[in-house]
Amino acid sequence: MSSQAAHPALMIPGPIEFDDAVLQSMAHYSESHVGPGFVATFGDTLAMLRKLFQTTNPASQPFVINGSGTLGWDMVAVNLVEPGENALVLSTGYFGDGFADCLTAYGANVTKITGPVGSRPQPDEIEKALKEKKYKIITATHVDTSTGVLFDLKSLTDVVKRVSPDTLIIADGVCSVACEEIKFDEWGLDGVVTAGQKAIGCPTGLSISMFSGRAIDVVKNRKTEPATYFASMKRWIPIMQNYEAKKPSYFSTPSPQLIHALNTAVSQILARPLSERFQRHIEVSNKVKKAVADLGLKVVAGKPEDQAHAMTAIYLPDAVSIPDVLPKLLNKGIIFAGGLHKEIGTKYIRFGHMGPSAMDPNRKDVDNAIEALRASLAESGYKA
Amino acid sequence: MSSQAAHPALMIPGPIEFDDAVLQSMAHYSESHVGPGFVATFGDTLAMLRKLFQTTNPASQPFVINGSGTLGWDMVAVNLVEPGENALVLSTGYFGDGFADCLTAYGANVTKITGPVGSRPQPDEIEKALKEKKYKIITATHVDTSTGVLFDLKSLTDVVKRVSPDTLIIADGVCSVACEEIKFDEWGLDGVVTAGQKAIGCPTGLSISMFSGRAIDVVKNRKTEPATYFASMKRWIPIMQNYEAKKPSYFSTPSPQLIHALNTAVSQILARPLSERFQRHIEVSNKVKKAVADLGLKVVAGKPEDQAHAMTAIYLPDAVSIPDVLPKLLNKGIIFAGGLHKEIGTKYIRFGHMGPSAMDPNRKDVDNAIEALRASLAESGYKA
Repeated sequence: MSSQAAHPALMIPGPIEFDDAVLQSMAHYSESHVGPGFVATFGDTLAMLRKLFQTTNPASQPFVINGSGTLGWDMVAVNLVEPGENALVLSTGYFGDGFADCLTAYGANVTKITGPVGSRPQPDEIEKALKEKKYKIITATHVDTSTGVLFDLKSLTDVVKRVSPDTLIIADGVCSVACEEIKFDEWGLDGVVTAGQKAIGCPTGLSISMFSGRAIDVVKNRKTEPATYFASMKRWIPIMQNYEAKKPSYFSTPSPQLIHALNTAVSQILARPLSERFQRHIEVSNKVKKAVADLGLKVVAGKPEDQAHAMTAIYLPDAVSIPDVLPKLLNKGIIFAGGLHKEIGTKYIRFGHMGPSAMDPNRKDVDNAIEALRASLAESGYKA
Repeated sequence: MSSQAAHPALMIPGPIEFDDAVLQSMAHYSESHVGPGFVATFGDTLAMLRKLFQTTNPASQPFVINGSGTLGWDMVAVNLVEPGENALVLSTGYFGDGFADCLTAYGANVTKITGPVGSRPQPDEIEKALKEKKYKIITATHVDTSTGVLFDLKSLTDVVKRVSPDTLIIADGVCSVACEEIKFDEWGLDGVVTAGQKAIGCPTGLSISMFSGRAIDVVKNRKTEPATYFASMKRWIPIMQNYEAKKPSYFSTPSPQLIHALNTAVSQILARPLSERFQRHIEVSNKVKKAVADLGLKVVAGKPEDQAHAMTAIYLPDAVSIPDVLPKLLNKGIIFAGGLHKEIGTKYIRFGHMGPSAMDPNRKDVDNAIEALRASLAESGYKA
């Protein structure tokens, strides 16, 4: 923490606390976006993303574009679906609903299956829907940041491969890439869209995604031209391929500073086995869930198998409100987020425990946050 | 330069050399995108942009969104023009052509007037075109980074207001905001789209724009919903208004680090009168143009009134090639850019002289670049 000014620990489910070396990379001196130094950095970063997403298929295509997680939805909606085609959206909260809204904005014919609050659509419902209609794509939010509900992507891909193998399978991995297991090739995913500022640990400003060769073929063989310019995968594909081949190329200026920071963050991640990283997030999550239970509180994601490992959405006791508890936490140097779900928004808080706060043994962020929550509730008169 | 590692001076027309304090802001510790500290920083930044664009009309609306200059085109194309409506594009190079391609991608019916290489469409041609058809918008690239041609925006707005007052007037200000005079209100502009990494002096990653109340009304009164999500002005308007009013708000996560850097960069700009800044860029430009003439070389923008003040595109002598001269310049610690125009791309180089390199009296970047160009050409056997 040496180079960062003293500040409260940001324990929301993204942006997260960033490592010093990543922040230092943000201050990199200015480089040309087409100069050999930066081209090599960007190319290496794209190659490393293949490892992070666990894909060795050369047809898979990574994209890193100035933007945010939301832009990944636009890329999916405008490039993979043509107006009037069917999209099946599995929603477990605010972000699943947002993905559906985005697809609708581009003219997709959207069917949405929403799980009960704190749960997810079940395989039999999904199978039934897939048998009723031919869907171009199916989307699932791997972890919905509004609820902390984890989607079982492996089971989902099993169902889709069996019942509707032509349907492209897209995961919103904004709150899951680099903290939850994602086996892109083995599970047969066609797209995972994410951003830097959650478990990857790179400041906000990048849309990061991986698409399968099958998805890229869909982009190349469209019947209509996609109505976009900045989000056009067809325009970006040669640029990404050139950078990865260490050749200068131009469509729209990338950010050398953000790419340097991403390079540093992903290098740190890949310096250790991914399996160890996922296991560590599970252990930290177990500690948090146990502390929540010991406090007599409930997690929004009710069943253990539906619970994300890098964040926890926690119902407050009836007598304690968000405007009461968040300032008390801040007084103890901890920032949590309020609720973000239309039905239960005022009743719960969100605690992010991912990236450096979970991985760095020198950081006591998670223990401090648990203790601050306990103390803040006690100050409010709550007894476990 | 204390905190930046030794590096060659980046004298391309963007990204430019950044000030130390701006780069340090890029390494700001992590903050919540909806926390009071960051909300205040973002709100102040939006308010300062009004001054930078010289607009005091409260109906004017600034936008700062993760992206790049290109995204500004998308915002114009998808929000201000409905499919099938007419757009008149005035092109002075690669970026004018790009704006036309972007408008076409979204379904606009585009008419393009292209100036001869190194010049610009003239008022009589523009007047003639405006009388032939009703145009929803007219666009001009204030400075086309591919050619260094400056558009006379004031004369353009005079013609449009007289001949077709309902037509929205949009300027691509990527290579002009903060180095060329732009009087948003006085000239009656309806939109200026730009990015951070040129004369504003903030690392790449932000789309920065200002739209008039008239343009915002067009957005609000569309007949059809715009086919976009991330680039939807209707979705961003309340977010920008809330941040400026210092109220937390969420649509898609902004980048606290980039916004801090933008805040620092714009604060530095506004610490001195804008008129002084524009005058300084003119003086530096005059010095560069004189040095080019003294070397017996020609500027791509032939007439002085067509020449940008923050960059110069320079025709190389016949016997000197780009692959010959750029490495020689790099050996002397100077980075120039190659050509970027379909007709003359291999015949010229581009020299950016804006932002800190033009304004900071402690920097000798421009003098060093002129001297390095002279020496490099001499090494290639060229005699002025």
